[in-house]
Amino acid sequence: MLIVMKPDATSQDIERVNEEIRRRGWQPNAIPGGTRTAIGITGNKGAVEAEPFRVLPGVADAIPISQPFKLVSREVKPEDTVMQVGNLHLGGNAIHVMAGPCSVETREQIVGTAQAVKKSGATMLRGGAFKPRTSPYEFQGLKNDGLSLLAEARKETGLLVVTEVKDTATLPQVAEVADILQVGARNMQNFSLLEAVGETRKPVLLKRGLSATIKELLMAAEYIVAKGNTRVILCERGIRTFETMTRNTLDLNAVPMLKSLSHLPVWVDPSHGIGVRKAVPAMMRAAIAVGADGLIVEVHPDPPRALSDGHQSLEFSEFDKAMSEVRAIAGALGRDVARLG
Amino acid sequence: MLIVMKPDATSQDIERVNEEIRRRGWQPNAIPGGTRTAIGITGNKGAVEAEPFRVLPGVADAIPISQPFKLVSREVKPEDTVMQVGNLHLGGNAIHVMAGPCSVETREQIVGTAQAVKKSGATMLRGGAFKPRTSPYEFQGLKNDGLSLLAEARKETGLLVVTEVKDTATLPQVAEVADILQVGARNMQNFSLLEAVGETRKPVLLKRGLSATIKELLMAAEYIVAKGNTRVILCERGIRTFETMTRNTLDLNAVPMLKSLSHLPVWVDPSHGIGVRKAVPAMMRAAIAVGADGLIVEVHPDPPRALSDGHQSLEFSEFDKAMSEVRAIAGALGRDVARLG
Amino acid sequence: MLIVMKPDATSQDIERVNEEIRRRGWQPNAIPGGTRTAIGITGNKGAVEAEPFRVLPGVADAIPISQPFKLVSREVKPEDTVMQVGNLHLGGNAIHVMAGPCSVETREQIVGTAQAVKKSGATMLRGGAFKPRTSPYEFQGLKNDGLSLLAEARKETGLLVVTEVKDTATLPQVAEVADILQVGARNMQNFSLLEAVGETRKPVLLKRGLSATIKELLMAAEYIVAKGNTRVILCERGIRTFETMTRNTLDLNAVPMLKSLSHLPVWVDPSHGIGVRKAVPAMMRAAIAVGADGLIVEVHPDPPRALSDGHQSLEFSEFDKAMSEVRAIAGALGRDVARLG
Amino acid sequence: MLIVMKPDATSQDIERVNEEIRRRGWQPNAIPGGTRTAIGITGNKGAVEAEPFRVLPGVADAIPISQPFKLVSREVKPEDTVMQVGNLHLGGNAIHVMAGPCSVETREQIVGTAQAVKKSGATMLRGGAFKPRTSPYEFQGLKNDGLSLLAEARKETGLLVVTEVKDTATLPQVAEVADILQVGARNMQNFSLLEAVGETRKPVLLKRGLSATIKELLMAAEYIVAKGNTRVILCERGIRTFETMTRNTLDLNAVPMLKSLSHLPVWVDPSHGIGVRKAVPAMMRAAIAVGADGLIVEVHPDPPRALSDGHQSLEFSEFDKAMSEVRAIAGALGRDVARLG
Repeated sequence: MLIVMKPDATSQDIERVNEEIRRRGWQPNAIPGGTRTAIGITGNKGAVEAEPFRVLPGVADAIPISQPFKLVSREVKPEDTVMQVGNLHLGGNAIHVMAGPCSVETREQIVGTAQAVKKSGATMLRGGAFKPRTSPYEFQGLKNDGLSLLAEARKETGLLVVTEVKDTATLPQVAEVADILQVGARNMQNFSLLEAVGETRKPVLLKRGLSATIKELLMAAEYIVAKGNTRVILCERGIRTFETMTRNTLDLNAVPMLKSLSHLPVWVDPSHGIGVRKAVPAMMRAAIAVGADGLIVEVHPDPPRALSDGHQSLEFSEFDKAMSEVRAIAGALGRDVARLG
Repeated sequence: MLIVMKPDATSQDIERVNEEIRRRGWQPNAIPGGTRTAIGITGNKGAVEAEPFRVLPGVADAIPISQPFKLVSREVKPEDTVMQVGNLHLGGNAIHVMAGPCSVETREQIVGTAQAVKKSGATMLRGGAFKPRTSPYEFQGLKNDGLSLLAEARKETGLLVVTEVKDTATLPQVAEVADILQVGARNMQNFSLLEAVGETRKPVLLKRGLSATIKELLMAAEYIVAKGNTRVILCERGIRTFETMTRNTLDLNAVPMLKSLSHLPVWVDPSHGIGVRKAVPAMMRAAIAVGADGLIVEVHPDPPRALSDGHQSLEFSEFDKAMSEVRAIAGALGRDVARLG
Repeated sequence: MLIVMKPDATSQDIERVNEEIRRRGWQPNAIPGGTRTAIGITGNKGAVEAEPFRVLPGVADAIPISQPFKLVSREVKPEDTVMQVGNLHLGGNAIHVMAGPCSVETREQIVGTAQAVKKSGATMLRGGAFKPRTSPYEFQGLKNDGLSLLAEARKETGLLVVTEVKDTATLPQVAEVADILQVGARNMQNFSLLEAVGETRKPVLLKRGLSATIKELLMAAEYIVAKGNTRVILCERGIRTFETMTRNTLDLNAVPMLKSLSHLPVWVDPSHGIGVRKAVPAMMRAAIAVGADGLIVEVHPDPPRALSDGHQSLEFSEFDKAMSEVRAIAGALGRDVARLG
Repeated sequence: MLIVMKPDATSQDIERVNEEIRRRGWQPNAIPGGTRTAIGITGNKGAVEAEPFRVLPGVADAIPISQPFKLVSREVKPEDTVMQVGNLHLGGNAIHVMAGPCSVETREQIVGTAQAVKKSGATMLRGGAFKPRTSPYEFQGLKNDGLSLLAEARKETGLLVVTEVKDTATLPQVAEVADILQVGARNMQNFSLLEAVGETRKPVLLKRGLSATIKELLMAAEYIVAKGNTRVILCERGIRTFETMTRNTLDLNAVPMLKSLSHLPVWVDPSHGIGVRKAVPAMMRAAIAVGADGLIVEVHPDPPRALSDGHQSLEFSEFDKAMSEVRAIAGALGRDVARLG
């Protein structure tokens, strides 16, 4: 159920609706919009009757929601969510690109990469410190030392930092450094982690699981938003199919589908999406053309020597060239690619 | 094995190589290139020794081919194949768009659509006359009457005609009318049909099967080219995955992979690729951005009343708008979109 | 629409219903059952009104059919189809096993295999003469010579012969020799071939396509039955998934689903279903336990030297041991495994 | 690298090898076998030289391991792992069945179900207390109250209790009650949780992820065993494919593949594997026939009223009948189905 308030509803009217919701043992979730507020109800087990809410002052309508996601849906909030992170505004007309290595390896590597990707037009730096790996015998990241190096690279360049949080135990230390928390594909249905990042007030980049449907991605986002954290970025990063020539199958169909169902920004990870270095720039172009609001790209000073994902990381010069193409396509479609001052 | 001739090899030199191949019970397959000819060997069961060929006059090199496809591969022919069809050149810098209804239904429908899509910038008309359908109780097309209507629409507009050939029995009559023969996804491994279209000298639009790998698509094309028909267009049209919100998962990863492995033109069918009308323009844009050489798009004067595929067919005005975006993106990447005179 | 006749309806009553159906431009399809006849209607585009049929003499009921398959469904014919082929009855309580090499290679190979598998308890011999292959450079079978060798092996052993028909052009010669026509996975939606085998009166073993849904398999069978050939065996042979350790993923779920939806016999091909020789006996056991009515198993006198599919073919002794287990499981479930006299 | 000790190696010899491993900064992992001990090395980044170990006293051989899993592999430990849990021995010739509702709902429901499934031959009770759910608005389980009810049901019946642990935060309380910890499909690559259960000494039932390969399942098990917890049960529960008629596609191919690669017991969950109540018994039979060491089955006193998974839960009488078939098949293959005293 979604309670839509009139444009001239007072904060007193809103509080009255919230009280009625709480009185029934449910939670109200305010979703502020451009011209008016909507209030989602969560915590109800059965159906919610509309009538008792329709008669309250300031209420325009009470709409039963049929889809299993509510707070993230356009039915609840028709306008695009634009979120401020540092000085940047994500989710508006401007496209953002975050770039950097799969894993933070050394000070030189991460600061050098940050400087290079900033010059090419990235506004954010990605880099893994705590790395979930398929085998227990693979490199698991520099952990806290990696976080410190990311902070240093931010200080040097002004780039915002996105890094993955792999469990609730390390969430506090990761959240202290990261500007944006990344939840990885294998954790997309780690519901305890989703709830924990929902309780922080850090923006979250939520990656689609390897075999998650579009609807399941939206429900995973709903877990975060239901805890009060409305700054969620949805990220398509390739799904698992029968095709073996590419690491994953980048499902760009998901971008227009997500944009029509949800008000949240939709990003694309072309590096994991294809997993073949030479083809990453083509997928960057396609992602922008299809309507993505941002890209997350793996870039490394020396891909063949990377400790992880070297086969899909771009060199500085490859990234620079790809960014020109990204700007050309964005321009052709009337969008900007954001740059740092 | 691939015999690469020197740039100054004479036709006598080439014939000498062919004879040596035939003498062993194999078939030579000449692959003419811009500056020199290569000769693929087919019909051999075991390995082919290079030495006996290397010593022949006019031979530059004899290269063992490890991949299961030869004639369609870039190893054999590094330059892009450009094919003339009518007055058009497919496969070069210019992008072509074929558009039209899923099924030919009436004279008014097909001629009207042809005029509209020509005005918006299509150079070819698509329309099904013989329709393979999942259920025996679905509309199976107007058959020969549909072919006649396609021919009429061509006469009225000058658009080239592409239509599907569903079996060897109807191939002669379809080939009489079609400028390009379409082999549908469900027939991609109908090897007898592949051989039959390989024996015509009509260009072939070969659609990827629902669960065909990229390598299998190339081997299907190899069947056609091995019969001497070198004018094959590869077409990505969506694969079958676990996602149910879209009809198929358009695998745009396939485009750069195919372009790097093969010299054949690569096209995309965004209509079947997503199967959701409102999202088709986004996928058209993505296909151009990723590097496709052409598009095949379903357009219908009145989609809700179409006898088949109405849910994924664009109205004239939607197609017209999408074509503007296609031109903008092509322009941003230094490519043209071909138009009829 | 399905017209169900009363148990005491006369053949005149039935003909009267047929006439009413034909008068509307549709086709009647008689489906004889144990106690009464049902008549399926095909060829109708829109809905069929029940009333005009309900009032005819001898009609018990007229039932609208919602599923896209009719003639193959249990709604139309509740009892299991039992079909006579030679002296055998397929589809009843007794389980049948067909075994033999992927390809017919030599007289010694095929006759020797026939004798061995007969001794172990097979009632039918499989062997490919016309082979559809992914690459044009692979062994395509002995063709007509292969058919002759199969006929010879039948003469020597009394085993019935099943062999694949790959196209309509070779159907007449294959149908002359085969006791059962096999339609391969890649041809499951070759609708022209389905119609052609539907016009013969040979039993058909229809294999599920690599990415065909259970519903699509039933609709492919419907194509055959709608042409009047009611002797169709459905065969699960593995589907294509992301798992690469096995050749396919044998979908044994399909067996109980097909058995509940259709009256046709359901068989399993464990050899293609897993593609790993050592694991084939385990899958044979599972197929019998899940309720399959028959098995088709690849057996070769010398698997490592087979011209095709050696990696998944059993040796004679492996097959013999597996057949003992099959009999033990069938017995535990109250079913027999048929043997030749 | 795996160090295989001689049958007569002393514990002093073993300790000497361990020291050499630790001296290099790696961890030794003892894998006790029937006749001799093997020691796996973990924590090494690059290759390990065999020579320095081969010369130590008591060492039979030092074997480079190419597969990305070691401790769980048959190369390291050829004999089946048999684990004692309570008075039961899992992994030997006897098959075990755990049964119970998806979620613990009431005392009456869980105790009643425990009594019924015990009577039919189950040795363990399953029931969810902490439930991970796709949507935040679905029933999340009775949590600690659910654990108490499970303990009560155990006290009443003697059945061992298996229940899911959904995160590290609730692991201590779950481990206090559960005899076996279940790690669910969506957590199969929650590496922090895998490590945490690896640090307990509770047996773990590890379910295969929806899109996890067989190799990835083994690597997930490796995470647990590498922490010193060798009592892991691998559980196939269906993978995600294009087929929509069933909830998942039960991949019974995985059973013989896992049994040949690993010494750990392999179980099957037919309830999630097909998700269709009427077909669950068929899949139970198939799982036993294919070689599974155990089953986990959803049973509920009143499936249509279950708070979760009612569509795939068996009634008591259905389960009882299915268990008879399970015993018949096990008997036919020379295996027992364990019963409580």
